[in-house]
Amino acid sequence: MDGNHAAGATPRAWRICRQSVGVPLSAAGAMSIRAVLDRVFSAVDSSGPRPVLAIGNGDPTASASFRPPLEAEEAVVEALRSKKHNGYSPTVGFLQARRAIAEYLSQDLPYQLSPDDIYLTAGCCQAIDVMISILAQPGSNILLPKPGFPLYESRTMFSNLEERHFNLIPDRGWEADLESMEALADENTVAMVIINPSNPCGSVYSHDHLAKIAETARKLGIIIIADEVYDHLAFGNKPFIPMGVFADIVPVITLGSISKRWLVPGWRLGWIATCDPNGILKEAKVDKSIESYINITNDPATFIQVKLDLCYLDGILDDLDFCCRLAKEESVIVLPGSALGMKDWIRITFACDIPTLENALERIKSFCQRHANKLEA
Amino acid sequence: MDGNHAAGATPRAWRICRQSVGVPLSAAGAMSIRAVLDRVFSAVDSSGPRPVLAIGNGDPTASASFRPPLEAEEAVVEALRSKKHNGYSPTVGFLQARRAIAEYLSQDLPYQLSPDDIYLTAGCCQAIDVMISILAQPGSNILLPKPGFPLYESRTMFSNLEERHFNLIPDRGWEADLESMEALADENTVAMVIINPSNPCGSVYSHDHLAKIAETARKLGIIIIADEVYDHLAFGNKPFIPMGVFADIVPVITLGSISKRWLVPGWRLGWIATCDPNGILKEAKVDKSIESYINITNDPATFIQVKLDLCYLDGILDDLDFCCRLAKEESVIVLPGSALGMKDWIRITFACDIPTLENALERIKSFCQRHANKLEA
Repeated sequence: MDGNHAAGATPRAWRICRQSVGVPLSAAGAMSIRAVLDRVFSAVDSSGPRPVLAIGNGDPTASASFRPPLEAEEAVVEALRSKKHNGYSPTVGFLQARRAIAEYLSQDLPYQLSPDDIYLTAGCCQAIDVMISILAQPGSNILLPKPGFPLYESRTMFSNLEERHFNLIPDRGWEADLESMEALADENTVAMVIINPSNPCGSVYSHDHLAKIAETARKLGIIIIADEVYDHLAFGNKPFIPMGVFADIVPVITLGSISKRWLVPGWRLGWIATCDPNGILKEAKVDKSIESYINITNDPATFIQVKLDLCYLDGILDDLDFCCRLAKEESVIVLPGSALGMKDWIRITFACDIPTLENALERIKSFCQRHANKLEA
Repeated sequence: MDGNHAAGATPRAWRICRQSVGVPLSAAGAMSIRAVLDRVFSAVDSSGPRPVLAIGNGDPTASASFRPPLEAEEAVVEALRSKKHNGYSPTVGFLQARRAIAEYLSQDLPYQLSPDDIYLTAGCCQAIDVMISILAQPGSNILLPKPGFPLYESRTMFSNLEERHFNLIPDRGWEADLESMEALADENTVAMVIINPSNPCGSVYSHDHLAKIAETARKLGIIIIADEVYDHLAFGNKPFIPMGVFADIVPVITLGSISKRWLVPGWRLGWIATCDPNGILKEAKVDKSIESYINITNDPATFIQVKLDLCYLDGILDDLDFCCRLAKEESVIVLPGSALGMKDWIRITFACDIPTLENALERIKSFCQRHANKLEA
């Protein structure tokens, strides 16, 4: 070609990133927790006298009360100084790490996971990315909990996998509505997602409810993606039971990470574990699909959901309005429930020190008293 | 639902990971460098007396001759011990890191990049993943170099983006065949990928050739994805010139990482830089697309390509056969060119210490002499 000839010509139009791609992508981005929190943050009156108390964001590391174990820190320093770990790792992860995770998870299971059941990922987020990407196919759909973790919605939207929501029922400790789940599923449903302990509800499912979920999945012929990134963060007398306990009833793919229990969300180490004692996933070559996808590739804390009774509050439009006014008037940041599919709820996280939490709750109380409906007062 | 009733029933079939997904995925996985190297490795005679010399794999950290700078190691240890970096980072990366990368890249550009032009990724691989994912749309295609880095083929295949290959011409120092590029492109072409310094050819493009590439892209109305993960690894008297120098002619999206120049491929830190002095990418909202995709998400060295003249060798079928026999008879591992789209070539990497390289080349010489065609001898 004649370079000089072409240099002056301006192309008719640069053919980049058309609307067909841009629209679902920006819709997916707009619903992220970060985008909603940014909006609430921007409502804060920065000239105000009081420090901002942020109890809507699920990152415990901001508080000095939550520090990773020193042993973990030292292990990383030692690995770095050994100069043995600067190179590429196998795409599925180092055997030693996969074995450690298999042993860790097997402690709570009636069978033994092998290192071959474990795939390391860049945090639980990449584990979600991998599973949604390999399950997505034209015309298929997936059952997601509502409220849930919005990354599932974003990834399914991006992958053109249809999302169908089943409700978690507040009056039943946020148990899954199994009847509605059966009505939602059809022959194109590829999986259901169960988040336990629940993000964002903080609830922990009983053995009985988990068994019923497993039986429902078996009846529908769909596998379970068990998001257990909050494993063992169970308060009170309800123990955490992994979904993998029921893997003889239904194949379970467990997602997890070191982020929450070990307080290192920034370290980005997660995993996919195939709980498949009957070899059903292997037969369907799910293991090969995960491996192939990982070959070509390379977030939350302890929460409580609070329902807003807007009839008691004067002139507050909805949860976003509540949060933005609270940010403005009281410099307290909480997350609007609508970011998690729960309009007119708010989310408070306990991943902060106790004085901050107490101070924030005092301010929320003042706010509510000030805005209390005159008729009620 | 009646849990007990369902428990015994076996579903007709588990509806997971159908063929339509499995086939392209496994095809994408099978062409990976790792899969081909594994095949060559398995041909090694493990009972042989000599140590295996692997000069086909591009990871310098295996050799004591290539160590990351101590300052980098100490900086990571210090960051870890400060306990300030255990939490989530902004999805686009910390401002401080983005500013440092903007300043680093701007040293070689006639304009200044801003931190907002930089997006951090998990190594250059994720940068490729992000760019292919946001460019892919039904019916579109992308121009890729042949030979090239097979991850581009895998990702485009997975994203249903059609790949069209332009040749790099050995006799012209692996310059891109610009005439064939123009013939390949049509109104559905979204970008061209330029890898400079070339992986796997090791060649470095001149100012003149880069200008011609930019003019070709402008004429075609397509942007350039400039894979510069080997930036500044240029030997001899040809300096490395970034594609971004020509960004006033055509919008350039530069991909890079700290892996190669700083010898830390396992640290997984890469970037996407939008070189867009005329604001064309911004107008097309490419910045927003990258940000949205990164919101919902979360490999090679210095090479030389050697052509095999099989007519001089007796009974060697092709490059894979050559490599497997070499592994078996001489315990030397080199990469078959077919893994990189170059049948009957082999790839040798210099990312090993010099005695290993000399020893390996001696053994390859013996192998060739032993298998030399009798008529030639």
